Amino acid sequence: MKYMSLLKNYKAVVSYDGGRYRGYQSQTKEENTIQGKLESVLSKMCGEKVDVAGSGRTDAGVHAKGQVISFALKSTMHTTEMRDYCNHYLPEDIVILSVEEAAKRFHARLSAEEKIYSYHIVNGDIPPLFQRKYVTYIKEPLDLIAMEKMAKALSGTHDYQAFSSAKKSNKSTIKTVHITVERKEDEIEMVFRGDGFLYHMVRILTGTILEAGMGKRTLSGTDAIFTAKDRSKAGYLVPPEGLFLDKVIYD
Amino acid sequence: MKYMSLLKNYKAVVSYDGGRYRGYQSQTKEENTIQGKLESVLSKMCGEKVDVAGSGRTDAGVHAKGQVISFALKSTMHTTEMRDYCNHYLPEDIVILSVEEAAKRFHARLSAEEKIYSYHIVNGDIPPLFQRKYVTYIKEPLDLIAMEKMAKALSGTHDYQAFSSAKKSNKSTIKTVHITVERKEDEIEMVFRGDGFLYHMVRILTGTILEAGMGKRTLSGTDAIFTAKDRSKAGYLVPPEGLFLDKVIYD
Repeated sequence: MKYMSLLKNYKAVVSYDGGRYRGYQSQTKEENTIQGKLESVLSKMCGEKVDVAGSGRTDAGVHAKGQVISFALKSTMHTTEMRDYCNHYLPEDIVILSVEEAAKRFHARLSAEEKIYSYHIVNGDIPPLFQRKYVTYIKEPLDLIAMEKMAKALSGTHDYQAFSSAKKSNKSTIKTVHITVERKEDEIEMVFRGDGFLYHMVRILTGTILEAGMGKRTLSGTDAIFTAKDRSKAGYLVPPEGLFLDKVIYD
Repeated sequence: MKYMSLLKNYKAVVSYDGGRYRGYQSQTKEENTIQGKLESVLSKMCGEKVDVAGSGRTDAGVHAKGQVISFALKSTMHTTEMRDYCNHYLPEDIVILSVEEAAKRFHARLSAEEKIYSYHIVNGDIPPLFQRKYVTYIKEPLDLIAMEKMAKALSGTHDYQAFSSAKKSNKSTIKTVHITVERKEDEIEMVFRGDGFLYHMVRILTGTILEAGMGKRTLSGTDAIFTAKDRSKAGYLVPPEGLFLDKVIYD
Protein backbone atom coordinates (compact mmCIF):
# COMPACT_ATOMS: atom_id res chain seq x y z
CA MET A 1 0.00 0.00 0.00
CA LYS A 2 2.91 2.35 0.57
CA TYR A 3 3.93 1.83 -3.08
CA MET A 4 0.46 2.82 -4.24
CA SER A 5 0.43 5.99 -2.18
CA LEU A 6 3.63 7.19 -3.85
CA LEU A 7 2.26 6.80 -7.35
CA LYS A 8 0.82 10.16 -8.37
CA ASN A 9 -1.21 11.07 -11.42
CA TYR A 10 -0.19 14.07 -13.51
CA LYS A 11 -1.65 16.26 -16.23
CA ALA A 12 0.68 18.18 -18.55
CA VAL A 13 0.12 20.60 -21.42
CA VAL A 14 2.47 20.03 -24.33
CA SER A 15 3.29 22.10 -27.38
CA TYR A 16 5.08 20.67 -30.39
CA ASP A 17 6.15 21.25 -33.96
CA GLY A 18 4.93 18.09 -35.66
CA GLY A 19 7.01 18.72 -38.79
CA ARG A 20 9.52 15.91 -38.34
CA TYR A 21 7.35 13.39 -36.51
CA ARG A 22 5.24 10.44 -37.58
CA GLY A 23 2.44 11.95 -35.49
CA TYR A 24 1.62 12.14 -31.81
CA GLN A 25 1.43 8.37 -31.58
CA SER A 26 1.84 5.54 -34.04
CA GLN A 27 1.13 1.85 -34.25
CA THR A 28 4.66 0.58 -33.95
CA LYS A 29 6.75 1.62 -30.97
CA GLU A 30 9.89 2.11 -33.01
CA GLU A 31 8.68 5.07 -34.97
CA ASN A 32 9.55 8.69 -34.31
CA THR A 33 6.55 10.04 -32.38
CA ILE A 34 5.81 12.78 -29.86
CA GLN A 35 4.51 10.23 -27.36
CA GLY A 36 7.69 8.20 -27.76
CA LYS A 37 9.86 11.24 -26.96
CA LEU A 38 7.73 12.14 -23.93
CA GLU A 39 7.74 8.59 -22.55
CA SER A 40 11.47 8.36 -23.02
CA VAL A 41 12.27 11.56 -21.11
CA LEU A 42 9.76 10.84 -18.31
CA SER A 43 11.10 7.29 -17.94
CA LYS A 44 14.64 8.65 -17.74
CA MET A 45 13.48 11.17 -15.13
CA CYS A 46 11.99 8.68 -12.71
CA GLY A 47 14.08 5.62 -13.50
CA GLU A 48 11.26 3.36 -14.64
CA LYS A 49 8.99 2.92 -17.62
CA VAL A 50 6.29 5.63 -17.77
CA ASP A 51 3.22 5.29 -20.01
CA VAL A 52 1.83 8.52 -21.40
CA ALA A 53 -1.80 8.96 -22.53
CA GLY A 54 -2.54 11.80 -24.95
CA SER A 55 -5.92 13.49 -25.40
CA GLY A 56 -5.88 12.06 -28.89
CA ARG A 57 -3.58 11.44 -31.80
CA THR A 58 -2.43 14.17 -34.10
CA ASP A 59 -1.38 13.07 -37.58
CA ALA A 60 2.13 13.18 -38.98
CA GLY A 61 3.10 16.82 -39.54
CA VAL A 62 0.30 18.30 -37.39
CA HIS A 63 1.35 20.70 -34.62
CA ALA A 64 0.02 21.32 -31.12
CA LYS A 65 -0.11 24.42 -28.97
CA GLY A 66 -2.03 22.69 -26.19
CA GLN A 67 -1.98 18.92 -26.42
CA VAL A 68 -2.79 17.40 -23.01
CA ILE A 69 -1.18 14.25 -21.65
CA SER A 70 -1.61 12.27 -18.44
CA PHE A 71 0.76 9.85 -16.74
CA ALA A 72 1.33 8.29 -13.35
CA LEU A 73 4.72 8.02 -11.71
CA LYS A 74 6.53 7.94 -8.42
CA SER A 75 8.53 11.07 -7.79
CA THR A 76 9.26 13.58 -5.09
CA MET A 77 9.99 16.27 -7.68
CA HIS A 78 7.98 19.47 -7.75
CA THR A 79 5.86 19.88 -10.89
CA THR A 80 7.84 22.89 -12.15
CA GLU A 81 11.06 20.91 -11.63
CA MET A 82 9.54 18.11 -13.72
CA ARG A 83 8.61 20.57 -16.46
CA ASP A 84 12.10 22.09 -16.51
CA TYR A 85 13.79 18.67 -16.43
CA CYS A 86 11.71 17.48 -19.40
CA ASN A 87 12.25 20.67 -21.40
CA HIS A 88 15.97 20.35 -20.84
CA TYR A 89 16.09 16.82 -22.27
CA LEU A 90 13.31 16.97 -24.88
CA PRO A 91 14.21 17.86 -28.47
CA GLU A 92 13.75 21.57 -29.24
CA ASP A 93 10.53 20.91 -31.18
CA ILE A 94 8.64 19.61 -28.13
CA VAL A 95 8.02 21.87 -25.11
CA ILE A 96 6.09 21.11 -21.93
CA LEU A 97 4.16 24.24 -20.94
CA SER A 98 2.91 23.03 -17.56
CA VAL A 99 2.73 20.01 -15.30
CA GLU A 100 0.22 19.65 -12.46
CA GLU A 101 -0.93 16.89 -10.14
CA ALA A 102 -4.28 15.53 -11.27
CA ALA A 103 -7.08 13.57 -9.68
CA LYS A 104 -6.43 9.80 -9.65
CA ARG A 105 -9.19 9.24 -12.22
CA PHE A 106 -8.01 11.93 -14.62
CA HIS A 107 -7.14 10.56 -18.06
CA ALA A 108 -6.10 12.88 -20.91
CA ARG A 109 -8.26 11.11 -23.49
CA LEU A 110 -11.15 9.67 -21.48
CA SER A 111 -11.74 12.84 -19.45
CA ALA A 112 -11.61 15.21 -22.43
CA GLU A 113 -14.87 17.06 -23.11
CA GLU A 114 -14.00 19.11 -26.17
CA LYS A 115 -11.08 19.96 -28.40
CA ILE A 116 -10.18 23.08 -30.33
CA TYR A 117 -8.19 22.84 -33.55
CA SER A 118 -7.16 25.69 -35.83
CA TYR A 119 -6.13 25.66 -39.47
CA HIS A 120 -3.93 28.46 -40.81
CA ILE A 121 -3.78 29.71 -44.37
CA VAL A 122 -1.85 32.50 -46.03
CA ASN A 123 -3.85 33.81 -48.96
CA GLY A 124 -2.36 36.50 -51.16
CA ASP A 125 0.31 37.40 -53.67
CA ILE A 126 3.26 37.13 -51.29
CA PRO A 127 4.20 33.63 -50.12
CA PRO A 128 4.66 33.17 -46.36
CA LEU A 129 8.24 33.22 -45.12
CA PHE A 130 8.83 32.99 -41.38
CA GLN A 131 5.55 31.10 -40.79
CA ARG A 132 5.99 28.89 -43.85
CA LYS A 133 6.21 25.64 -41.88
CA TYR A 134 2.98 26.41 -40.01
CA VAL A 135 0.57 27.49 -42.72
CA THR A 136 -0.77 26.43 -46.08
CA TYR A 137 -0.24 28.97 -48.85
CA ILE A 138 -3.03 29.56 -51.34
CA LYS A 139 -2.31 32.22 -53.93
CA GLU A 140 -5.68 32.36 -55.68
CA PRO A 141 -8.30 34.68 -54.19
CA LEU A 142 -10.73 33.08 -51.72
CA ASP A 143 -14.32 34.17 -51.18
CA LEU A 144 -14.51 34.59 -47.41
CA ILE A 145 -18.30 34.98 -47.33
CA ALA A 146 -18.75 31.66 -49.14
CA MET A 147 -16.30 30.05 -46.71
CA GLU A 148 -18.16 31.43 -43.68
CA LYS A 149 -21.44 30.13 -45.02
CA MET A 150 -19.97 26.71 -45.69
CA ALA A 151 -18.41 26.66 -42.20
CA LYS A 152 -21.84 27.35 -40.74
CA ALA A 153 -23.49 24.68 -42.88
CA LEU A 154 -20.91 22.12 -41.75
CA SER A 155 -21.33 23.05 -38.07
CA GLY A 156 -23.84 21.38 -35.77
CA THR A 157 -24.55 17.86 -34.68
CA HIS A 158 -24.18 15.52 -37.64
CA ASP A 159 -22.94 12.15 -38.75
CA TYR A 160 -19.52 13.25 -40.04
CA GLN A 161 -18.58 9.92 -41.61
CA ALA A 162 -18.13 11.44 -45.07
CA PHE A 163 -15.49 13.75 -43.56
CA SER A 164 -13.29 10.91 -42.35
CA SER A 165 -10.58 8.80 -43.95
CA ALA A 166 -11.22 6.00 -41.43
CA LYS A 167 -12.78 2.73 -42.47
CA LYS A 168 -16.28 2.13 -41.19
CA SER A 169 -16.29 0.77 -37.66
CA ASN A 170 -18.73 0.37 -34.78
CA LYS A 171 -17.69 3.68 -33.26
CA SER A 172 -20.17 6.52 -33.50
CA THR A 173 -19.44 9.04 -36.19
CA ILE A 174 -21.97 11.53 -34.83
CA LYS A 175 -20.19 14.61 -33.49
CA THR A 176 -21.04 18.16 -32.51
CA VAL A 177 -18.72 20.70 -34.07
CA HIS A 178 -18.66 24.49 -34.32
CA ILE A 179 -16.55 26.07 -37.07
CA THR A 180 -15.55 29.73 -37.53
CA VAL A 181 -13.54 31.46 -40.24
CA GLU A 182 -11.65 34.71 -39.72
CA ARG A 183 -9.45 36.75 -41.99
CA LYS A 184 -6.75 39.23 -40.89
CA GLU A 185 -4.96 40.74 -43.87
CA ASP A 186 -3.43 37.79 -45.75
CA GLU A 187 -4.00 35.27 -42.96
CA ILE A 188 -7.09 33.11 -42.68
CA GLU A 189 -7.74 31.10 -39.54
CA MET A 190 -10.42 28.43 -39.25
CA VAL A 191 -11.28 27.27 -35.74
CA PHE A 192 -12.94 23.92 -35.05
CA ARG A 193 -14.41 23.29 -31.62
CA GLY A 194 -16.05 19.95 -31.07
CA ASP A 195 -16.72 17.03 -28.77
CA GLY A 196 -14.79 14.67 -31.00
CA PHE A 197 -13.06 14.47 -34.36
CA LEU A 198 -12.73 11.51 -36.71
CA TYR A 199 -9.52 10.57 -38.56
CA HIS A 200 -8.59 13.45 -40.93
CA MET A 201 -11.91 15.18 -40.13
CA VAL A 202 -10.56 18.69 -39.53
CA ARG A 203 -8.44 18.57 -42.68
CA ILE A 204 -11.33 17.33 -44.85
CA LEU A 205 -13.72 19.94 -43.37
CA THR A 206 -11.07 22.57 -44.13
CA GLY A 207 -10.75 21.32 -47.71
CA THR A 208 -14.51 21.42 -48.15
CA ILE A 209 -14.69 25.00 -46.86
CA LEU A 210 -11.77 26.01 -49.09
CA GLU A 211 -13.50 24.54 -52.14
CA ALA A 212 -16.45 26.81 -51.35
CA GLY A 213 -14.01 29.74 -51.13
CA MET A 214 -12.57 28.81 -54.52
CA GLY A 215 -16.03 28.69 -56.10
CA LYS A 216 -15.79 24.94 -56.71
CA ARG A 217 -18.63 23.99 -54.36
CA THR A 218 -21.94 25.50 -53.30
CA LEU A 219 -23.97 25.16 -50.12
CA SER A 220 -26.73 23.24 -51.84
CA GLY A 221 -24.84 19.94 -51.84
CA THR A 222 -23.97 20.05 -48.14
CA ASP A 223 -26.90 18.02 -46.79
CA ALA A 224 -26.23 15.35 -49.39
CA ILE A 225 -22.66 14.89 -48.12
CA PHE A 226 -23.95 14.20 -44.61
CA THR A 227 -26.70 11.84 -45.71
CA ALA A 228 -24.63 9.94 -48.29
CA LYS A 229 -21.82 9.40 -45.72
CA ASP A 230 -19.57 9.18 -48.75
CA ARG A 231 -15.98 10.43 -48.45
CA SER A 232 -15.83 11.19 -52.18
CA LYS A 233 -18.59 13.80 -51.83
CA ALA A 234 -16.61 15.87 -49.29
CA GLY A 235 -13.70 18.18 -50.06
CA TYR A 236 -9.99 17.50 -50.44
CA LEU A 237 -7.61 16.64 -47.63
CA VAL A 238 -5.54 19.75 -46.90
CA PRO A 239 -1.86 19.33 -45.92
CA PRO A 240 -1.04 18.77 -42.24
CA GLU A 241 1.36 21.68 -41.67
CA GLY A 242 -1.39 24.32 -41.29
CA LEU A 243 -3.14 22.37 -38.52
CA PHE A 244 -2.77 22.94 -34.78
CA LEU A 245 -4.37 21.24 -31.80
CA ASP A 246 -4.87 24.41 -29.76
CA LYS A 247 -6.64 23.27 -26.64
CA VAL A 248 -8.28 20.33 -24.91
CA ILE A 249 -11.16 21.20 -22.61
CA TYR A 250 -11.93 19.29 -19.39
CA ASP A 251 -14.67 19.74 -16.85
CA MET B 1 21.38 54.58 -77.56
CA LYS B 2 18.34 52.37 -77.98
CA TYR B 3 20.05 49.71 -75.86
CA MET B 4 20.61 52.20 -73.05
CA SER B 5 17.02 53.31 -73.01
CA LEU B 6 15.84 49.75 -72.43
CA LEU B 7 18.01 49.26 -69.38
CA LYS B 8 15.92 50.15 -66.35
CA ASN B 9 16.92 50.48 -62.73
CA TYR B 10 14.89 48.69 -60.07
CA LYS B 11 14.49 48.70 -56.31
CA ALA B 12 13.15 45.62 -54.54
CA VAL B 13 12.36 44.79 -50.93
CA VAL B 14 13.42 41.29 -49.93
CA SER B 15 12.66 39.15 -46.90
CA TYR B 16 14.67 36.07 -46.01
CA ASP B 17 15.35 33.44 -43.43
CA GLY B 18 19.13 33.56 -43.16
CA GLY B 19 19.31 30.25 -41.30
CA ARG B 20 20.92 28.17 -44.03
CA TYR B 21 22.95 30.87 -45.82
CA ARG B 22 26.52 32.09 -45.55
CA GLY B 23 25.10 35.58 -45.27
CA TYR B 24 23.65 38.12 -47.69
CA GLN B 25 26.88 38.25 -49.62
CA SER B 26 30.25 36.58 -49.29
CA GLN B 27 33.73 36.98 -50.67
CA THR B 28 33.77 34.00 -52.97
CA LYS B 29 31.06 33.65 -55.57
CA GLU B 30 30.69 29.92 -55.06
CA GLU B 31 29.21 30.15 -51.61
CA ASN B 32 25.56 29.85 -50.69
CA THR B 33 24.38 33.45 -50.28
CA ILE B 34 21.15 35.43 -50.59
CA GLN B 35 22.68 37.69 -53.23
CA GLY B 36 23.77 34.65 -55.22
CA LYS B 37 20.23 33.26 -55.22
CA LEU B 38 18.76 36.62 -56.26
CA GLU B 39 21.27 37.15 -59.06
CA SER B 40 20.68 33.67 -60.32
CA VAL B 41 16.89 34.03 -60.57
CA LEU B 42 17.04 37.54 -62.06
CA SER B 43 19.62 36.43 -64.61
CA LYS B 44 17.41 33.49 -65.54
CA MET B 45 14.46 35.86 -65.86
CA CYS B 46 16.04 38.26 -68.33
CA GLY B 47 18.46 35.93 -70.06
CA GLU B 48 21.66 37.75 -69.16
CA LYS B 49 23.83 38.27 -66.10
CA VAL B 50 22.27 40.66 -63.58
CA ASP B 51 24.30 42.21 -60.77
CA VAL B 52 22.44 42.87 -57.56
CA ALA B 53 23.47 45.50 -54.98
CA GLY B 54 22.21 45.05 -51.41
CA SER B 55 21.81 47.85 -48.87
CA GLY B 56 24.47 46.07 -46.88
CA ARG B 57 25.61 42.62 -45.88
CA THR B 58 23.85 40.59 -43.26
CA ASP B 59 25.97 37.93 -41.55
CA ALA B 60 25.50 34.20 -41.85
CA GLY B 61 22.32 33.22 -40.03
CA VAL B 62 20.88 36.75 -39.83
CA HIS B 63 17.37 37.28 -41.23
CA ALA B 64 15.75 40.17 -43.07
CA LYS B 65 12.20 41.45 -43.15
CA GLY B 66 13.07 44.39 -45.35
CA GLN B 67 16.46 44.12 -47.05
CA VAL B 68 16.58 46.42 -50.07
CA ILE B 69 18.34 45.58 -53.31
CA SER B 70 18.86 47.45 -56.57
CA PHE B 71 19.64 46.13 -60.03
CA ALA B 72 19.46 47.22 -63.63
CA LEU B 73 18.12 45.04 -66.42
CA LYS B 74 16.35 45.05 -69.75
CA SER B 75 12.84 43.72 -69.54
CA THR B 76 9.34 44.49 -70.69
CA MET B 77 7.86 42.69 -67.68
CA HIS B 78 5.64 44.54 -65.24
CA THR B 79 7.15 44.89 -61.74
CA THR B 80 4.50 42.65 -60.12
CA GLU B 81 5.16 40.02 -62.80
CA MET B 82 8.88 40.22 -61.94
CA ARG B 83 8.10 39.79 -58.26
CA ASP B 84 5.87 36.77 -58.91
CA TYR B 85 8.37 35.22 -61.33
CA CYS B 86 11.18 35.55 -58.76
CA ASN B 87 9.07 34.23 -55.89
CA HIS B 88 8.13 31.23 -58.00
CA TYR B 89 11.78 30.30 -58.68
CA LEU B 90 13.44 31.47 -55.46
CA PRO B 91 13.90 28.96 -52.62
CA GLU B 92 11.11 29.12 -50.02
CA ASP B 93 13.33 30.96 -47.53
CA ILE B 94 13.72 34.05 -49.75
CA VAL B 95 10.68 36.14 -50.71
CA ILE B 96 10.54 39.35 -52.74
CA LEU B 97 7.92 41.63 -51.18
CA SER B 98 7.92 44.31 -53.86
CA VAL B 99 9.67 45.48 -57.01
CA GLU B 100 9.49 49.04 -58.34
CA GLU B 101 11.25 51.07 -60.97
CA ALA B 102 13.78 53.40 -59.42
CA ALA B 103 15.60 56.54 -60.46
CA LYS B 104 18.69 55.84 -62.56
CA ARG B 105 20.97 56.97 -59.74
CA PHE B 106 19.30 54.88 -57.04
CA HIS B 107 21.68 52.40 -55.43
CA ALA B 108 20.55 50.18 -52.55
CA ARG B 109 23.73 50.75 -50.52
CA LEU B 110 24.92 54.20 -51.59
CA SER B 111 21.48 55.82 -51.36
CA ALA B 112 20.60 54.32 -47.95
CA GLU B 113 20.12 56.90 -45.20
CA GLU B 114 19.36 54.71 -42.20
CA LYS B 115 18.76 51.11 -41.26
CA ILE B 116 16.60 49.51 -38.63
CA TYR B 117 17.60 46.19 -37.08
CA SER B 118 15.79 44.28 -34.35
CA TYR B 119 17.02 41.60 -31.99
CA HIS B 120 14.54 39.14 -30.50
CA ILE B 121 14.88 37.31 -27.20
CA VAL B 122 12.61 34.92 -25.36
CA ASN B 123 13.20 35.29 -21.63
CA GLY B 124 11.36 33.03 -19.22
CA ASP B 125 10.88 29.50 -17.94
CA ILE B 126 9.36 28.08 -21.12
CA PRO B 127 11.69 27.72 -24.11
CA PRO B 128 10.43 29.13 -27.43
CA LEU B 129 8.92 26.62 -29.83
CA PHE B 130 7.42 27.93 -33.07
CA GLN B 131 9.73 31.01 -33.11
CA ARG B 132 12.80 29.04 -31.99
CA LYS B 133 14.75 29.67 -35.20
CA TYR B 134 14.18 33.44 -34.96
CA VAL B 135 14.98 34.24 -31.33
CA THR B 136 17.64 33.73 -28.71
CA TYR B 137 16.43 32.01 -25.56
CA ILE B 138 17.65 33.26 -22.20
CA LYS B 139 16.20 31.45 -19.21
CA GLU B 140 17.71 33.54 -16.42
CA PRO B 141 15.77 36.65 -15.34
CA LEU B 142 16.80 39.91 -17.03
CA ASP B 143 16.58 43.35 -15.44
CA LEU B 144 14.72 45.36 -18.06
CA ILE B 145 15.35 48.71 -16.39
CA ALA B 146 19.11 48.12 -16.42
CA MET B 147 18.86 47.11 -20.08
CA GLU B 148 16.91 50.24 -20.98
CA LYS B 149 19.47 52.42 -19.22
CA MET B 150 22.34 50.69 -21.02
CA ALA B 151 20.52 51.03 -24.37
CA LYS B 152 20.23 54.76 -23.73
CA ALA B 153 23.89 55.05 -22.71
CA LEU B 154 24.98 53.26 -25.89
CA SER B 155 22.76 55.46 -28.10
CA GLY B 156 23.92 58.71 -29.64
CA THR B 157 26.76 59.74 -31.91
CA HIS B 158 29.90 57.87 -30.93
CA ASP B 159 32.97 56.13 -32.24
CA TYR B 160 31.64 52.56 -32.11
CA GLN B 161 34.93 50.87 -32.92
CA ALA B 162 34.91 48.84 -29.69
CA PHE B 163 31.59 47.37 -30.83
CA SER B 164 32.97 45.92 -34.03
CA SER B 165 34.76 42.71 -34.96
CA ALA B 166 36.32 44.39 -38.00
CA LYS B 167 40.02 45.12 -38.15
CA LYS B 168 40.98 48.79 -38.00
CA SER B 169 40.70 50.50 -41.38
CA ASN B 170 40.50 53.99 -42.78
CA LYS B 171 36.71 53.94 -42.76
CA SER B 172 34.99 56.09 -40.18
CA THR B 173 33.68 54.21 -37.15
CA ILE B 174 31.62 57.18 -35.95
CA LYS B 175 27.93 56.40 -36.21
CA THR B 176 24.66 57.74 -34.88
CA VAL B 177 22.47 55.04 -33.38
CA HIS B 178 19.25 54.99 -31.36
CA ILE B 179 18.45 51.87 -29.36
CA THR B 180 15.19 50.92 -27.64
CA VAL B 181 14.25 47.90 -25.51
CA GLU B 182 10.71 46.64 -25.11
CA ARG B 183 9.28 43.67 -23.26
CA LYS B 184 5.94 41.95 -24.01
CA GLU B 185 5.37 38.99 -21.71
CA ASP B 186 8.30 36.64 -22.32
CA GLU B 187 9.49 38.41 -25.47
CA ILE B 188 12.10 41.15 -25.47
CA GLU B 189 12.74 43.17 -28.61
CA MET B 190 15.64 45.57 -29.04
CA VAL B 191 15.44 47.97 -31.95
CA PHE B 192 18.53 49.65 -33.44
CA ARG B 193 18.07 52.57 -35.78
CA GLY B 194 21.18 54.16 -37.17
CA ASP B 195 22.96 55.76 -40.08
CA GLY B 196 25.42 52.90 -40.32
CA PHE B 197 26.52 49.75 -38.54
CA LEU B 198 29.98 48.19 -38.32
CA TYR B 199 30.71 44.48 -38.66
CA HIS B 200 28.95 42.61 -35.79
CA MET B 201 27.98 45.95 -34.22
CA VAL B 202 24.31 45.20 -33.52
CA ARG B 203 25.15 41.81 -32.04
CA ILE B 204 27.88 43.24 -29.77
CA LEU B 205 25.64 46.12 -28.66
CA THR B 206 22.94 43.53 -27.87
CA GLY B 207 25.43 41.46 -25.87
CA THR B 208 26.52 44.54 -23.93
CA ILE B 209 22.90 45.45 -23.10
CA LEU B 210 22.17 41.85 -22.09
CA GLU B 211 25.16 41.82 -19.73
CA ALA B 212 23.63 44.87 -18.03
CA GLY B 213 20.35 42.94 -17.76
CA MET B 214 22.18 39.99 -16.19
CA GLY B 215 23.85 42.25 -13.61
CA LYS B 216 27.31 41.59 -15.07
CA ARG B 217 27.92 45.17 -16.18
CA THR B 218 27.05 48.64 -14.91
CA LEU B 219 26.57 51.94 -16.68
CA SER B 220 29.70 53.45 -15.16
CA GLY B 221 32.06 51.69 -17.57
CA THR B 222 30.22 52.74 -20.71
CA ASP B 223 32.20 55.88 -21.55
CA ALA B 224 35.43 53.93 -21.13
CA ILE B 225 34.37 51.43 -23.81
CA PHE B 226 33.86 54.24 -26.31
CA THR B 227 37.10 56.02 -25.48
CA ALA B 228 39.27 52.89 -25.27
CA LYS B 229 37.93 51.66 -28.67
CA ASP B 230 38.79 48.22 -27.36
CA ARG B 231 36.60 45.28 -28.46
CA SER B 232 37.45 43.35 -25.29
CA LYS B 233 35.75 46.01 -23.15
CA ALA B 234 32.40 45.61 -24.90
CA GLY B 235 29.91 42.78 -24.38
CA TYR B 236 29.68 39.34 -25.94
CA LEU B 237 28.65 38.60 -29.50
CA VAL B 238 25.08 37.26 -29.39
CA PRO B 239 24.06 34.51 -31.87
CA PRO B 240 22.82 35.58 -35.32
CA GLU B 241 19.42 33.85 -35.31
CA GLY B 242 17.68 36.52 -33.18
CA LEU B 243 18.70 39.34 -35.54
CA PHE B 244 16.58 40.86 -38.31
CA LEU B 245 17.26 43.65 -40.77
CA ASP B 246 13.79 45.20 -40.58
CA LYS B 247 13.97 48.23 -42.82
CA VAL B 248 16.25 50.39 -44.92
CA ILE B 249 15.32 54.05 -45.07
CA TYR B 250 15.86 56.21 -48.18
CA ASP B 251 15.16 59.87 -48.75
